[in-house]
Amino acid sequence: MNRPVTERLSEAESGPDTLLFMNGSGTAPAVPRPAYRRLSVEQRRSQLLTAALGLFAQRAPEDVSLDDVANAAEVSRPLVYRYFPGGKQQLYEAALRSAADMLERCFAEPESGPLTQRLSRALDRYLAFVDEHDAGFSALLQGGSVVETARTGAIVDEVRRAAADQILRHLGEPEPGLRLRMTVRMWITAVEGASLIWLDEDKQPGLDELRDWLVDHFIALLTATAARDTQTARVTRAALKLEAADGPAGALARRLLPVVSDATHLL
Amino acid sequence: MNRPVTERLSEAESGPDTLLFMNGSGTAPAVPRPAYRRLSVEQRRSQLLTAALGLFAQRAPEDVSLDDVANAAEVSRPLVYRYFPGGKQQLYEAALRSAADMLERCFAEPESGPLTQRLSRALDRYLAFVDEHDAGFSALLQGGSVVETARTGAIVDEVRRAAADQILRHLGEPEPGLRLRMTVRMWITAVEGASLIWLDEDKQPGLDELRDWLVDHFIALLTATAARDTQTARVTRAALKLEAADGPAGALARRLLPVVSDATHLL
Repeated sequence: MNRPVTERLSEAESGPDTLLFMNGSGTAPAVPRPAYRRLSVEQRRSQLLTAALGLFAQRAPEDVSLDDVANAAEVSRPLVYRYFPGGKQQLYEAALRSAADMLERCFAEPESGPLTQRLSRALDRYLAFVDEHDAGFSALLQGGSVVETARTGAIVDEVRRAAADQILRHLGEPEPGLRLRMTVRMWITAVEGASLIWLDEDKQPGLDELRDWLVDHFIALLTATAARDTQTARVTRAALKLEAADGPAGALARRLLPVVSDATHLL
Repeated sequence: MNRPVTERLSEAESGPDTLLFMNGSGTAPAVPRPAYRRLSVEQRRSQLLTAALGLFAQRAPEDVSLDDVANAAEVSRPLVYRYFPGGKQQLYEAALRSAADMLERCFAEPESGPLTQRLSRALDRYLAFVDEHDAGFSALLQGGSVVETARTGAIVDEVRRAAADQILRHLGEPEPGLRLRMTVRMWITAVEGASLIWLDEDKQPGLDELRDWLVDHFIALLTATAARDTQTARVTRAALKLEAADGPAGALARRLLPVVSDATHLL
C-alpha cells in the first residue's frame, strides 16, 4: 500500500487554518474546531478515503470531483491535493485499495464449524458491503469507467484471488487441483454477478435469502464438480459430514427430494 | 448497427490502385489483383473486421494500430480510415459489435430435444469462439483496456442479456420470475468466468470436458434454485423429464450418488 506518511504532510506544518476549514459553502468557521486540526496523517487520510468511498457509492467514479470529496470531508481542496497529489486517479485507486482491503477482510473466518456456517458469515459481511456501496460497487466491477485502468483491474482481481484462497483454505485441501480451483473461482464469479444483478433488481430478494441461496449454489457447484473429480469428491464428502440436518445443507437436501423425485428414470 | 454504406465509400471511386494495394512491406504489386478491387462495400468492411478481430484475438485492443489492421488485410491505411473514419475506437467498436453478433448466434438453437443437448450445442459454439479469439476475448471481457468505454460495456451486456433470453425461452417459461432469471444470469456469469479462467489455465481441461462440466453446473444451479422457488421447481421437473438416462443429466445423477451417500444424516 502506498501511504504518503511523510513529515511534509504533517498538518501541524500546513498552511493557515482557513485553508483547512474552507468548506462547501466557501466560508471559514469563525473559530477553528481543534478536532479537525489534531487528526494524524493516517486519520486524515482515512477520513478522506471514507468520504471518497461514500461518494463513489452514490455515483460513478468519473462523476466525482476532488471538490466533491473536499466538500464531503469538510476540508479544503488543497488539503485533498496534499494527500493525493496525483489527483482523482490517485484518490480513486487509494479508495479502491481501501475497499479491496475491506472486501478481503470479509472472507477472513475461523476454520471451525460446518462450512456453510463459515460461508454464510463471510457472505453476510460481503453482501453488507455491496448493500452499503451499491452504485460504487457496480461501477467498480462493471468497468466502463473512465478512471478504470489495468492497475484498478489488478486490484479487483487481487480481491477475487484472495477470496478464492480463503475458501480453498477452508476446504482443507493443501494442494487444490484445477477442477476444485476453477469451481471456487466460478462460484466467486457467480457471487459477483449475483451482487450486480441484485443491485440491478432493486435489491430483491432480501439479504438473508440471497445469502442462503448463494450458499446453496456453492454446495450445488461443489457437488456437481465432485461428480467429475476425485479430489473435489473427497472434499465434498468431508464437508457434508460436518453439516447439520438443521443447517443449510440439510434444508437444501430435504427441499431437493421432491424436485428430483420424478427423475428416477435417470438412475 | 452503424454501417457506413454510402456511395462515397464505393471503391470504384477511390484513389489510385497503389493506395489500395500498399501492403506491410511498403511495396505495391506490379499487377493489381482484381479480386481486391471488386469487393463490395459490405465485403470490404467484413474483410477489415475479420482482420481486426484476428489481431484483437492475439493482443489487447490498445496494442493494435490501424496500420496493423491495414497490413493484416493487405490494404492501405487510408482505406481502413475511409471505412472507419472514427479511427481505432470506431474500428474496435465495430469489431466488438461483429463479435457480439457472432456470440449471440451461438445461443440460437431449435427448441426440441432434451435441454442438456441444446445447451451442449450452444456451449460448443460459444467455447469454439472463446478458443479461437482467446486473448481478444479476455481483453474484451476483462476490461482494463484503454478503448473500453460505457458503449463497449453496453455491447457486452447486450450479449449477456441475449444469451439469458435464449436460455429462458428454452426453459419454456413465458414469464420468468426473479429467481429463475437470476439463476440463468448467474450461470452465464459463471460460464464467462470459466472461459476466462480456462484461458488463464492454458485451456485445461479439454473443450468437451469443459462443456459437459458447465452443463452439469447449469443442472446443479437450476436444481438448487428449484429447492427455493416453485416456478423454477416446475421448470426443472419438466426439463428433467425430457432428459435421457444415457444423457448428461443421467450421468450426473449416477455420479452424484456415491458423493452424497455419506450424507443421509442431512435428510
